[in-house]
Amino acid sequence: MHLSKNEIKHLHSLSQKKVRHAEKKFILEGWRALKEALNSSFQIELVAVLPQYLENQDYAKTISEIGERKIPLKELTELELKKIADTVHSQGVIALTHQKPFSLNDNALKQSSLVVAVDSVSDPGNLGSILRSADWFGVDAVLLGKGCVELYNEKVVRSTVGSIFHLTIIEGVDLQLALPEAQKNDFWVMAASGDGKEPYTLAKTKPKNVLVFGNEAHGVTKEIRTIADAVIKIPKFGRAESLNVGVACGILLAHLREKTQMRNRD
Amino acid sequence: MHLSKNEIKHLHSLSQKKVRHAEKKFILEGWRALKEALNSSFQIELVAVLPQYLENQDYAKTISEIGERKIPLKELTELELKKIADTVHSQGVIALTHQKPFSLNDNALKQSSLVVAVDSVSDPGNLGSILRSADWFGVDAVLLGKGCVELYNEKVVRSTVGSIFHLTIIEGVDLQLALPEAQKNDFWVMAASGDGKEPYTLAKTKPKNVLVFGNEAHGVTKEIRTIADAVIKIPKFGRAESLNVGVACGILLAHLREKTQMRNRD
Repeated sequence: MHLSKNEIKHLHSLSQKKVRHAEKKFILEGWRALKEALNSSFQIELVAVLPQYLENQDYAKTISEIGERKIPLKELTELELKKIADTVHSQGVIALTHQKPFSLNDNALKQSSLVVAVDSVSDPGNLGSILRSADWFGVDAVLLGKGCVELYNEKVVRSTVGSIFHLTIIEGVDLQLALPEAQKNDFWVMAASGDGKEPYTLAKTKPKNVLVFGNEAHGVTKEIRTIADAVIKIPKFGRAESLNVGVACGILLAHLREKTQMRNRD
Repeated sequence: MHLSKNEIKHLHSLSQKKVRHAEKKFILEGWRALKEALNSSFQIELVAVLPQYLENQDYAKTISEIGERKIPLKELTELELKKIADTVHSQGVIALTHQKPFSLNDNALKQSSLVVAVDSVSDPGNLGSILRSADWFGVDAVLLGKGCVELYNEKVVRSTVGSIFHLTIIEGVDLQLALPEAQKNDFWVMAASGDGKEPYTLAKTKPKNVLVFGNEAHGVTKEIRTIADAVIKIPKFGRAESLNVGVACGILLAHLREKTQMRNRD
C-alpha cells in the first residue's frame, strides 16, 4: 500500500525537533539501522520503502520480519522520500520509530562501570561518532548534558550507524548533579581537555570510571572541571590546534579498555 | 576594493573538482585556516572578506599581515560569499590558495618514521579527521591512495581545521608500489581492519611504521592485506558493527606514540 498524503505530511513534520520532542518519535534511515532497530526493544510504528527494494533479495529477511511483526509496510516514491529524508543515506527505506527514554532513576549508574558523559557537544556527527565508539567499547551508559545536540536529530541517528539502538543513553542530564552522584557511587570522574594536567597514559583510574567530554569550541566547563577528580589530556606531538572530540573519546575509551585487560592479565 | 564579477565567477568555479585540478588551486574558508595558511609555505593569491570583519579587532593582526605580504584583499557581500562558500563555516573570509603538491620523490619516506597511508577513504569528514589526528600526533607523511576523496574538496579542507597546512601529504599514490618501497626502507606496514588478526595492543612495531586505513564500507583491499606485514584490529567490547575510520586512526596513532614514549622512558 502507498503512504497517504497525511502520512507523508506527518513523516515530513518529524524533521522538526519540536515535533520529535512532542511526539517522542523519530525517523530512522537505511537498512542497517532498521535491522538494528528490529533487533532492539525500540518500537517501530511504520516502515516506508521504495517499491524496487521489496523484491531485492538482500533485504528479503528484513522485509519478512516486518511482516511477521505486523509492522505496517508502505511504499513511497523517490520524490516523497526526498521530502522526508536524505535519499542518499536512506538507501530507499525509512521507519517511524518511537524514542526510548532512559532516566537516571533506572539505577543506570549503580550497575555500570564505564560511563561516558557528554556536555554540550553541538555537532551531530561528533555526537554520533561518540555513541558509535561508546557502543564498540561496551560503555554501560551515556549521559547527555542539557546543552547537547538533540539525540534524535537525523544526522546523529545516521552517524551512530545503528549504535543508538544498543546503548543506554540518558538525555537532558544536569551533569553538575549527576557527576557528584556518580562519585558517591564510587565512580572516578575524568574530564578530557586539551589543556588538561595529566596525560591520560599516566592518569589514575578506578574500577568504575566516567569520562566527560565538552563542547567542540569551548571544552569542558569550569564547573565540571571543579567537580572532576582529574582533568586529563592527550599529549600532542605535532602542530594541530586540537583533536576532534569524537577521536579523543575513542582514544580514551580504547586506553581504558586496554588498561582493564592488562590488569586482568596480570 | 570589491571583488569583480569575473573574480566571483572564478572563485565560484573552484567548487568544481575539475577546475581545482586544472588550476591547482582551492578555496580556504575561515580565519583559523587562513592564519595557518599564512604561517605555512602555501601561496595565497587572494583574500576576500565581508566588510564588517575589516574593522574587527580579533582579526586585525591577520588583516595587517595580508597587507604586509601584499596579498590582494577584497570585499564581497554576504550573497556573493554564499555563492562561493559555505557561509556558516567561512566565518566571513575565504582565500584563493595554491595547492602544494608533494611527491614520493621528495625522499619523504627516507626521512620519516611514522607514516599514515589512506586507501580510498571516501567521506570528506573522515579524511579531514584523519589528517587532523595525523597532525596532532606528528605524523611525518600521509600517503593518499588513488581512490581517496580529493584532498582539496572544501569539506576535507574545512575538517582538517588548518592541519592541511602543516602536513606532508602525497596524493594519488599507488599504494601497491609505495608500501613495498617503504618496506625496503625498513618500514613496518600495518593495515587496520575490523577483522584483523592481531589486537593492536599486542602487535609488533618497529622504529619506522606505516599505518594503512581502507575504505569506510569495504576496508583495506586484499592486495594491501597481502603486502602488509600485519593486519591489526581494535578489539570490540560492545555491539557496534564497526568503528569510524577517523576514530580508529586516532586510537592507533595514540597507541604508537604512547609505546614510543614508554620505550624512551625504559
